[in-house]
Amino acid sequence: MLDIIALRRDFHQYPEVGFTEFRTASKVVEILTSLGYDVIYGKDALDGDSRRGLPAEEVLDEAFVRALRDGANVDILEKMKGGYTAVIGILKGKEQGPTVAFRFDMDALPIHESIDSDHFPQAKGFRSKYEGNMHACAHDGHTAIGLGLAEKLSDRNFSGTIKLIFQPAEEGVRGAYSIVQKGMLDDVDYLFCHHLGTGVPLGEFHGGASGFLASTKLAVHFHGISSHAGASPEKGRNALLGAATALLNIHAISRFSSGSTRVNVGVLEGGTATNIIPQHAKMLVETRSVSEEVNEEVERRVKKIIAHSAEMHELQHEIQVIGSAIPIDCDLDLVTLAVEEARNIEGFSSCKNFGDSNSTGSEDASFMIRRVQENGGKGTYMIIGTGIPAPHHHPKFDIQEEVLPWSVELLERIARRTLT
Amino acid sequence: MLDIIALRRDFHQYPEVGFTEFRTASKVVEILTSLGYDVIYGKDALDGDSRRGLPAEEVLDEAFVRALRDGANVDILEKMKGGYTAVIGILKGKEQGPTVAFRFDMDALPIHESIDSDHFPQAKGFRSKYEGNMHACAHDGHTAIGLGLAEKLSDRNFSGTIKLIFQPAEEGVRGAYSIVQKGMLDDVDYLFCHHLGTGVPLGEFHGGASGFLASTKLAVHFHGISSHAGASPEKGRNALLGAATALLNIHAISRFSSGSTRVNVGVLEGGTATNIIPQHAKMLVETRSVSEEVNEEVERRVKKIIAHSAEMHELQHEIQVIGSAIPIDCDLDLVTLAVEEARNIEGFSSCKNFGDSNSTGSEDASFMIRRVQENGGKGTYMIIGTGIPAPHHHPKFDIQEEVLPWSVELLERIARRTLT
Amino acid sequence: MLDIIALRRDFHQYPEVGFTEFRTASKVVEILTSLGYDVIYGKDALDGDSRRGLPAEEVLDEAFVRALRDGANVDILEKMKGGYTAVIGILKGKEQGPTVAFRFDMDALPIHESIDSDHFPQAKGFRSKYEGNMHACAHDGHTAIGLGLAEKLSDRNFSGTIKLIFQPAEEGVRGAYSIVQKGMLDDVDYLFCHHLGTGVPLGEFHGGASGFLASTKLAVHFHGISSHAGASPEKGRNALLGAATALLNIHAISRFSSGSTRVNVGVLEGGTATNIIPQHAKMLVETRSVSEEVNEEVERRVKKIIAHSAEMHELQHEIQVIGSAIPIDCDLDLVTLAVEEARNIEGFSSCKNFGDSNSTGSEDASFMIRRVQENGGKGTYMIIGTGIPAPHHHPKFDIQEEVLPWSVELLERIARRTLT
Amino acid sequence: MLDIIALRRDFHQYPEVGFTEFRTASKVVEILTSLGYDVIYGKDALDGDSRRGLPAEEVLDEAFVRALRDGANVDILEKMKGGYTAVIGILKGKEQGPTVAFRFDMDALPIHESIDSDHFPQAKGFRSKYEGNMHACAHDGHTAIGLGLAEKLSDRNFSGTIKLIFQPAEEGVRGAYSIVQKGMLDDVDYLFCHHLGTGVPLGEFHGGASGFLASTKLAVHFHGISSHAGASPEKGRNALLGAATALLNIHAISRFSSGSTRVNVGVLEGGTATNIIPQHAKMLVETRSVSEEVNEEVERRVKKIIAHSAEMHELQHEIQVIGSAIPIDCDLDLVTLAVEEARNIEGFSSCKNFGDSNSTGSEDASFMIRRVQENGGKGTYMIIGTGIPAPHHHPKFDIQEEVLPWSVELLERIARRTLT
Repeated sequence: MLDIIALRRDFHQYPEVGFTEFRTASKVVEILTSLGYDVIYGKDALDGDSRRGLPAEEVLDEAFVRALRDGANVDILEKMKGGYTAVIGILKGKEQGPTVAFRFDMDALPIHESIDSDHFPQAKGFRSKYEGNMHACAHDGHTAIGLGLAEKLSDRNFSGTIKLIFQPAEEGVRGAYSIVQKGMLDDVDYLFCHHLGTGVPLGEFHGGASGFLASTKLAVHFHGISSHAGASPEKGRNALLGAATALLNIHAISRFSSGSTRVNVGVLEGGTATNIIPQHAKMLVETRSVSEEVNEEVERRVKKIIAHSAEMHELQHEIQVIGSAIPIDCDLDLVTLAVEEARNIEGFSSCKNFGDSNSTGSEDASFMIRRVQENGGKGTYMIIGTGIPAPHHHPKFDIQEEVLPWSVELLERIARRTLT
Repeated sequence: MLDIIALRRDFHQYPEVGFTEFRTASKVVEILTSLGYDVIYGKDALDGDSRRGLPAEEVLDEAFVRALRDGANVDILEKMKGGYTAVIGILKGKEQGPTVAFRFDMDALPIHESIDSDHFPQAKGFRSKYEGNMHACAHDGHTAIGLGLAEKLSDRNFSGTIKLIFQPAEEGVRGAYSIVQKGMLDDVDYLFCHHLGTGVPLGEFHGGASGFLASTKLAVHFHGISSHAGASPEKGRNALLGAATALLNIHAISRFSSGSTRVNVGVLEGGTATNIIPQHAKMLVETRSVSEEVNEEVERRVKKIIAHSAEMHELQHEIQVIGSAIPIDCDLDLVTLAVEEARNIEGFSSCKNFGDSNSTGSEDASFMIRRVQENGGKGTYMIIGTGIPAPHHHPKFDIQEEVLPWSVELLERIARRTLT
Repeated sequence: MLDIIALRRDFHQYPEVGFTEFRTASKVVEILTSLGYDVIYGKDALDGDSRRGLPAEEVLDEAFVRALRDGANVDILEKMKGGYTAVIGILKGKEQGPTVAFRFDMDALPIHESIDSDHFPQAKGFRSKYEGNMHACAHDGHTAIGLGLAEKLSDRNFSGTIKLIFQPAEEGVRGAYSIVQKGMLDDVDYLFCHHLGTGVPLGEFHGGASGFLASTKLAVHFHGISSHAGASPEKGRNALLGAATALLNIHAISRFSSGSTRVNVGVLEGGTATNIIPQHAKMLVETRSVSEEVNEEVERRVKKIIAHSAEMHELQHEIQVIGSAIPIDCDLDLVTLAVEEARNIEGFSSCKNFGDSNSTGSEDASFMIRRVQENGGKGTYMIIGTGIPAPHHHPKFDIQEEVLPWSVELLERIARRTLT
Repeated sequence: MLDIIALRRDFHQYPEVGFTEFRTASKVVEILTSLGYDVIYGKDALDGDSRRGLPAEEVLDEAFVRALRDGANVDILEKMKGGYTAVIGILKGKEQGPTVAFRFDMDALPIHESIDSDHFPQAKGFRSKYEGNMHACAHDGHTAIGLGLAEKLSDRNFSGTIKLIFQPAEEGVRGAYSIVQKGMLDDVDYLFCHHLGTGVPLGEFHGGASGFLASTKLAVHFHGISSHAGASPEKGRNALLGAATALLNIHAISRFSSGSTRVNVGVLEGGTATNIIPQHAKMLVETRSVSEEVNEEVERRVKKIIAHSAEMHELQHEIQVIGSAIPIDCDLDLVTLAVEEARNIEGFSSCKNFGDSNSTGSEDASFMIRRVQENGGKGTYMIIGTGIPAPHHHPKFDIQEEVLPWSVELLERIARRTLT
């Protein structure tokens, strides 16, 4: 039997950021295969061109080699080369029935994990071995829960088909869309997604979540002409002047009476030396809104500002969508079903349909839920509470591991109840 | 015989700004006619469509009525209606010979003249009667000198043709171009222009002037959509956001290694109330450079910045050229000829080819000189010194009137020397 | 008996903007006095230093003279000189009881009234005689209702004291605060304010209103140094560069997760000519938020941006608060009491506690209600529906006059019910 | 006898950027010592705190280790650790006399050298071995010339003292100041500096150079507060908003009528992720002017803009001077002396006092010349022509090596002529 706490700690030690989950994903393939699942992965599990914010080739290559070195199965790995790191395990029950899917995200973050002795993974010896990367958003736990659930259901004592989706690159809302575009959600009747933590304490469970914002993440490049800043400044075309103009005007986009919004230029980098007119600038921008339509309008305005800030200074520019999410509308049937099942588990002392957390984050599971709903199916996004010593994305983030077996038990109950 | 000091004081009392010189110009027509000159004026003397920065119709009408009220000849005036206020007096000598032209500008400035008792025009009782307007750049003197010269040459004791050009709207470099475009300079062999003052002391004379900058003046309108700033800000299109973006970026235009430059947004006005998204904004911009080509390039960049600042915020915009000037390249022949003649006049104790003044102003006589030179003729721009108690364009500006008869004598000498 | 429709039409013909309501207010004084009220007005009714956005002295003087010319009582008028145009009528009932106040605003707007023949005031011959000013927000009706109510209650058949507050300068949320600061609300137990229209149809009545935003209106002056833009631009200190920088950064103030916000630079004006470095710029700014605290924080940030935009360019600056409002929290007791009374009036076929209108405007009656509530009293802000052919603040705005007698009847009922 | 062409090629293969010239400088120490010079280096030759734009410690360490690996003398190297890479060779002649100094700069640039077969160093096999660094400004040649001169003068057949200054970090105008501050120039009577190339063809020599601009290079850090851009943007303090505001306003600094200027924000980098309010931003800025005073005024304005852009957004900031230069005023005595000596050398067919090149670069030899002149000595900056296949700072830059022995001969003649 799988030791899911040991699994979580193993994943924690080898944190891999979006689309570089080579070691993690190959381990998932091995375990699912050993449990009797049909396993779809590599180019079969996601649409390459629909991946957003794919890392540079050398980053992908380096992570690939690192995974090899750290013992990943070379045959499996070969199929994931270049960032094809989604894994989907499928198992048919003994009887006919609906298709029920669960989503687990696997990626880590580019954060230096704390070395403080009061940081649990440090104290217990399972701190990150990939310096600069860290599981600071509980996806190590999610992946372990997914494997635990896989083992439970390997008895095939259910009617219908179970589909376990292990997703890369949730951070930056980049990976889910490519799995949806590959058609992996097209046959799903019920979809259950979840997250650990998010401010909800241990013992509390929410059958649904609201407040996820529509969001778009853009990478922008401005290309000008460099020139010596003393000898011939007029021959340059200054990429930073265009970028700074765009930055100010993007932040100055109007508030919307039709729905609250957010805009942020999170990164701006340009130029090479004090005495050179900057030839190139790069900008990362995001937009958000409670309303999908308003987010689209804000995104349209951002693009317009960028285009004309560039042309004003006779710059070329490119804009790429490197991430996006839409709001989530949980189906109340599944919300209440999940709450009912949670009440049967001793660990969950407080079970609600929806909680008070007004998270204003974004989730690309939204694309999966939307696709299932478009096809007449149903979906929900559940919150499973756990105490966290520091916020998500913090160097001292951690979870309470007792929540892992409770979660496996809950998901198993939900699966068996719906697979009938 | 004309009393040119009295004439100067009369013009000083009735200061008329660019294209509203109805009273001044009609008086010039009357005197030139009485002296036997052929007089071209109204639509015959300038090209209406080439006038730059024409005042609004109601301003023109009001000034017209004022001139009528103040005794201008109605028949003459009628031909100037709508801002056709150029006057050209032509007289053929007794013999054949070249065509020699002199330029005199007639317009005043929108400045409140000082009421201090030490201000000479106030003390002597000839302060401006048109409150808010003032001859603060010596054009009253220029016009009086022109009429004095006309009288001297009315004997026709010369060979060739004398052409006296009385120009409207030199301030803002707006009027000369329309006279040139009407072809009035096409037959001129020698052209002499001049200015009183400019920091040169009484008794000093410069046969030529350098340092005039190429310049373009632009009026810009941004048109957006107003909306309630509280209820639906997103429905507005904010003209001031576009204008402010343009303003900052215009000032941020690169320095040029190929010639020193200037840019200025001299005026920005927009919006109507605190709680309304501004629908309209107006901007006055100027560019300058020692180099005509560089000025054109700066003007091109300004227009580009304006266009894209507007489009960035989904505004309409219009750009009008309301004034322009080019550099002046004085012909050394005429410069030295003028200096030689000046040396014969007692008042001028110091005569130089070019002075030290690095005026960085602009002059639209530049278009006239350029046209003459393009046709194989020659031109110069002379500086006639006079003490001034306050700088040009200042409420206490004034000239020393003894310079007026000296100037008439000098121009007469130059005319008779060249008309042979 | 007063003809309140005739009164409304009279006020409509003589529209006076904030703090210039000389004719209107003196008429109110005359009528209240004739009905037996104690009348407080002039410097006794408001605190001069607390008036916000007071017009320039010459504007006040001109309006004063105009009111005199148009028949206002000179003795009354004299006490209002300089913009002291609040009027408060007080009448004690035959018995002891609470103090109940009603607020009526009297000011008009700087809008050109329509001359279209289908515009009711034009068709009926009571269009504005003060060209450029217009009652386009129903305050003419409010004032007429107030006088109608005064007449009804002049029988003194009630217990307690009635206080009728006729306020200047509601537009721009400028006048109420000065009345509050004078202590005029300190003895009030119940305060009823109302507005006609606001999108609510004829026959509908709301006992309370919500959604009023906290707001601050600021007038900002930047003072630099002018200089010739060609000859010595470096000697100038450019007020428009400071203002444009402030404008962009004010609009770029962060969204707040703690409450929706608005910012607007409604007006920017600066500079005098193309060739002068702009010496002065003026800016009108407003901030809003559903939360008073958030509005204060946004206002703080706006002021900081202005101060440092000025200092960055070595400019002096001043910031004046020219208007402000806070949210309104209606007391449910009074809301339901008002609705109960409205139901007794035939004209009101639909009566609600609160309507659906999510007005995002601001009201300075908020200061009055807040003061009453701080002293343990209660207040509400009611909406009385009327069809309007064009939105508030539009040249064709009008009301349905039948709402005027209904409103008088309603307020009388409320007064008699509470004055016990 | 030294093979200076071989020496130049050796330096070319091991290009070391400013303050990391460990291998180059230690070789210089070895050779000077072997020739009998007293050699001052390490902390004795420059003032550590006066070094500008010192690289980060790890960069210094890495370069140090690299130099060790590539054969540098460990004992010498130890004294240079941490970026103390100046070397000064001193030799007294057989007789008493003046102190004559020559300056040679040793540093390379962070440029990838061309691998094209027509690039001479590539073809001849002496292309850079330090990938990413390159001698693209002829300092390899300068250093070789300096050693060649050292050898010639080692006979001590002169009167007075020869001082050969091998300077680090000329690029970015960073190193000279620290040598001056150590007092190394205080006893110098005549100082000769030179540069190869700069657009002057082989065979041409200029005894002096003009047009060097005063310049200041600044590194700026803005420190704000990060926050989640969706959940609580208002809690952040946005470093990029401050930086972008500074960038636009720095470029918008007025032109100066008192001397042409340059400003450039060459680098801007800030922020970490799309969904984080940027906490930090870094900016590199430079100012220039033909006038030292104007450059100081522009620098003052830049600092003011930075300070208030930071405070406007409640950011902390730091500004460091990382480089600077002043104009150079060559002493005509030395200029003509140098030209006279050059005429004796066959290679120089065209010798001028000053050339036409209007280089608008900056040179920190300016600080050395200024110090000598302040003490009553004299200095000049000479240009020694050489064909260059590509501009300075270009991946294909190269020199014609025949100029090296000519240069040694010229400097020897100058030295012997002045050392009397």
